[in-house]
Amino acid sequence: MAYTLRSVSSAVSSTRASRFSTVAVRASAQINPSIRKSEEKVADFVKVEDLPKPKAVYCRCWRSSKFPMCDGAHVKHNKETGDNVGPLVIESPTAK
Amino acid sequence: MAYTLRSVSSAVSSTRASRFSTVAVRASAQINPSIRKSEEKVADFVKVEDLPKPKAVYCRCWRSSKFPMCDGAHVKHNKETGDNVGPLVIESPTAK
Ligand code: FES
Ligand code: FES
Repeated sequence: MAYTLRSVSSAVSSTRASRFSTVAVRASAQINPSIRKSEEKVADFVKVEDLPKPKAVYCRCWRSSKFPMCDGAHVKHNKETGDNVGPLVIESPTAK
Repeated sequence: MAYTLRSVSSAVSSTRASRFSTVAVRASAQINPSIRKSEEKVADFVKVEDLPKPKAVYCRCWRSSKFPMCDGAHVKHNKETGDNVGPLVIESPTAK
């Protein structure tokens, strides 16, 4: 799982008094778990004439197996986490 | 913070023996902390003729104050989390 625990402040220290402990977790999460991790920054450059037509659907959830294109993986991510992310769609005029 | 703790399994239960407790946290993180959270899915549709010229820089980190455009906020996110996300750039031909 691609997240980093920045600090775990726990109230575990001396809890003879209470049966339950409170654990405060501050997570600072990476949003890209696995795509091109050897690159310092994953930026993609596309020329407008090279865009897939009539629709170019680009992933913004970092879970597509066809990244940078969307393969629908955002649906699973949203379901699992309650998130609401989705793709960017560039529409080209269709031929007449 | 936009993450969901799915389960916190803690070894806190009976720890008279040990001074330190192990807390296993499985976090399932939302990647969009705050953008258009009232929408079930944030998809954006752009017609190719409406793309900003000569470069359209689109956010994929969900932290831009100009979303769906990139405002450079990915730099802070990457620094804070060790992540490596960046924008999608659509380049239009420049006028001659
Ligand atoms: S697969 Fe990532 S936005 Fe659709
Ligand atoms: S601000 Fe989000 S990718 Fe640049």
